[in-house]
Amino acid sequence: MKMNDYIDLINESIDKFMPINYPQKIFKSMKYTVTLPGKRLRPVMCLEACRMFGGNYEDAIPTACAIEMLHAQTLIHDDLPCMDNDDYRRGQLTNHKVFGEAHAVLAGDALLTFAPQTILKYSKNLGSEKLLKIMEEYFQAAGAFGVIAGQVVDIESEKLMQSFEFSGKIDIDKSELEKTLDYIHTHKTADLFKLALRTGAIIADANDEQINTITEFAQNLGVAFQIADDILDETSTFEQMGKTLGKDKEEGKLTYTSLYGLDKAKEDLNKLIANCFEILEKNKLKSEIFEQILNKIMNC
Amino acid sequence: MKMNDYIDLINESIDKFMPINYPQKIFKSMKYTVTLPGKRLRPVMCLEACRMFGGNYEDAIPTACAIEMLHAQTLIHDDLPCMDNDDYRRGQLTNHKVFGEAHAVLAGDALLTFAPQTILKYSKNLGSEKLLKIMEEYFQAAGAFGVIAGQVVDIESEKLMQSFEFSGKIDIDKSELEKTLDYIHTHKTADLFKLALRTGAIIADANDEQINTITEFAQNLGVAFQIADDILDETSTFEQMGKTLGKDKEEGKLTYTSLYGLDKAKEDLNKLIANCFEILEKNKLKSEIFEQILNKIMNC
Repeated sequence: MKMNDYIDLINESIDKFMPINYPQKIFKSMKYTVTLPGKRLRPVMCLEACRMFGGNYEDAIPTACAIEMLHAQTLIHDDLPCMDNDDYRRGQLTNHKVFGEAHAVLAGDALLTFAPQTILKYSKNLGSEKLLKIMEEYFQAAGAFGVIAGQVVDIESEKLMQSFEFSGKIDIDKSELEKTLDYIHTHKTADLFKLALRTGAIIADANDEQINTITEFAQNLGVAFQIADDILDETSTFEQMGKTLGKDKEEGKLTYTSLYGLDKAKEDLNKLIANCFEILEKNKLKSEIFEQILNKIMNC
Repeated sequence: MKMNDYIDLINESIDKFMPINYPQKIFKSMKYTVTLPGKRLRPVMCLEACRMFGGNYEDAIPTACAIEMLHAQTLIHDDLPCMDNDDYRRGQLTNHKVFGEAHAVLAGDALLTFAPQTILKYSKNLGSEKLLKIMEEYFQAAGAFGVIAGQVVDIESEKLMQSFEFSGKIDIDKSELEKTLDYIHTHKTADLFKLALRTGAIIADANDEQINTITEFAQNLGVAFQIADDILDETSTFEQMGKTLGKDKEEGKLTYTSLYGLDKAKEDLNKLIANCFEILEKNKLKSEIFEQILNKIMNC
């Protein structure tokens, strides 16, 4: 499969998995953000991981789409006025701007259970043992040990960064900030990448060693992706990214570029991408799709 | 088991299932609302349903506690400024008043997956088939087909009720409002009662007929409970209820008492409770706990 074939398949499947039931407004609100134009990176990676480990990528379609739903859930709640307060996402108005805050909160809530419900409904052929494993992976990544842990520390880090700048590096150790940033990137970003790749591998009956390998790959790729995002936040335009940029810097947020500077950020990004290529090569894992993704992130 | 023994067991188990991990603030925020003083009605019903159908109530403890976590999740998000905007709950400050809005949103999100994760972690003895059934029940009740559907229509009904009052019963059929109210009560309240009773029954290996019976019981009990809550909102005090009262009436909200009046509300409450007693008797289901709960709701 080519990248665009995967993307088309994912978009068609999401449309099928998300009919507009009653009460329509909540289902429309859920679907609005899930179907915003996007690269479908996480579901593509899930399908490709499944294929790469010898599975049938079609078996991973419901799980892949569920991960895109979960990703949309995090976007809807992150964009809320009480969180990042963003009006645009992928060039379109954010969920609460279209449906109102109350519905945006509820649409996010609904997606958190609609996603695994979709897996259970459409993946019965995987058998109950494998389905439970996928549920465990999903809960771990979606909850307070996963993306939410990253989001919470991200919010708290704003204060930390401000006092770091204010105190002129005297009271706060820079290594503390580095550890904090690594924690945020690992959980806020890499955990969903891990979920996509690990569940794809699990569906393909990958063994424990293979799952460890793909987890390490996902950790490197996830952090690389977030560094690229931080770089783009400084160097890109609204038209290119479809969201308001430069806000991180303005708000004194802890990001890779604010902590290490643009040059070191680019250097570390290249290192992480090189690690990813090395992991694929060392383990004789062949995938044009992952090569394309790695090159795209490197050349952000 | 006596009511108080169940309640103590639930409180102890919740405390055990919810250690304060890193990042502490999110786990503290989650636990804050779950452990607010309360009657633990839903988890008690889950344990008692399991016992009543011949199961070991101890097998239902993780599921029962997970349902209390889900209930707390709905309270945290319902109380948000963009929803009901409530400052007090069970006599204590609401979650966002203590931890801030962003953390309250995230604590609710986290509970939505922490709850089923708790079931998977502590109920392995139930076997994978039964665990998957419980997951399905949980997703159905927690999501856009369950409590969230009720909440969405509840929000929308405020406008409907206002235009009903404004138009003096000309443009809007009263039967439409009655249907809407029934929908709200069924989903916003009875669906969690059904979840508690059905999962308790499933854990006890109840057959389909028994599960249908307990679902009907839960529907009657859930609506009765909500009518009692609407009556108390009009007739009770802050000290008795621990939350701000009379808001529903003030905001022209669609409630049982606003639509039918206090007398008819009490009459229908008694009818529903009588139905519940009849269901128990007809099916030779004996439970002092359920009798206590029914009497308590009737004498609200």
